Amino acid sequence: MNARIAVPLPKAYRLLNHGPTVLVSSAHAGRRNVMAAAWNMALDFDPPKVAVVIDKATLTRELVEASGEFVLNVPSRQQAALTLAVGTRSGREIDKFATVGAGAAAASMVGAPLIEGCLAWLECRVIAEPHIQQSYDLFLAEVVAAWADPAVFSNGRWHFPDEQQRSIHYQAGGSFFATGDAFDI
Amino acid sequence: MNARIAVPLPKAYRLLNHGPTVLVSSAHAGRRNVMAAAWNMALDFDPPKVAVVIDKATLTRELVEASGEFVLNVPSRQQAALTLAVGTRSGREIDKFATVGAGAAAASMVGAPLIEGCLAWLECRVIAEPHIQQSYDLFLAEVVAAWADPAVFSNGRWHFPDEQQRSIHYQAGGSFFATGDAFDI
Repeated sequence: MNARIAVPLPKAYRLLNHGPTVLVSSAHAGRRNVMAAAWNMALDFDPPKVAVVIDKATLTRELVEASGEFVLNVPSRQQAALTLAVGTRSGREIDKFATVGAGAAAASMVGAPLIEGCLAWLECRVIAEPHIQQSYDLFLAEVVAAWADPAVFSNGRWHFPDEQQRSIHYQAGGSFFATGDAFDI
Repeated sequence: MNARIAVPLPKAYRLLNHGPTVLVSSAHAGRRNVMAAAWNMALDFDPPKVAVVIDKATLTRELVEASGEFVLNVPSRQQAALTLAVGTRSGREIDKFATVGAGAAAASMVGAPLIEGCLAWLECRVIAEPHIQQSYDLFLAEVVAAWADPAVFSNGRWHFPDEQQRSIHYQAGGSFFATGDAFDI
């Protein structure tokens, strides 16, 4: 597992504020899975909340509904191939951890694992809203712990000294953008 | 108004898929406003839907609830100062269009205006979900028309030939990232 430091919860929204594609990891009753999700966002500051779309067809959906927990992992450009792979294969067909080489470590507050090599991690507990889960595949959750690799996030800010250790933004058809130049107004 | 071409609705999610910060424009009964929103995401492909957080304290909230409509405008790096300005001032205190120089043009399907100089525009009609609007400031909407500047989006893909004409991703405290390098897996 790469280095990680705790991110104070009122700053956790900043891990998602710039709109990166994330990996959603989940576990329940001895099964676990990981999928990619471009459709995620922060929903509140403190206590921090997030929103993420999890399709009914996915194994992740089954594990998240059963456990009430998930982790949002922010992958790096170095993990773009892994991100695409876990976003296009189903956990019903393969063990994605073994097949695509996604290492996993124990989280602190939830049963879902932290994906190794990511830039940041948000441990989340689902806020039960059955109507929007069913109608829109939309899950709301409270962030109960947050972590970041101090090489890229510290004092509440992202900084990307290495081109391969930047967050990524999925477009479509295997095409991504890296997070680009930082600038201040 | 800069050039714009219609984006086929099943491709409209691609305007938001990479997580840009947007401007939310709104109008009702002769009043109009524009605010910034980093907390937005696509919610469905076809018909396309979006989700966006609109705080109770904002004039935008009042206009969106009254009209049932808004536009998500994707601003460029050139508009970062405008984005920060409309995100930090309230439309209750100033006419943001006049004060911050946000030009506006008529949309095709909704009363909310299109912000001039942006890279793309999604005309949206609110899907009434009063419980999540009230509890989480979360608005779901169907995209009823979508447009993009063909200099930066065509055939369903973003392309950013000019550094100033890239989409942007808000971090915090006046600090943004530009959308960076495109790469394929």
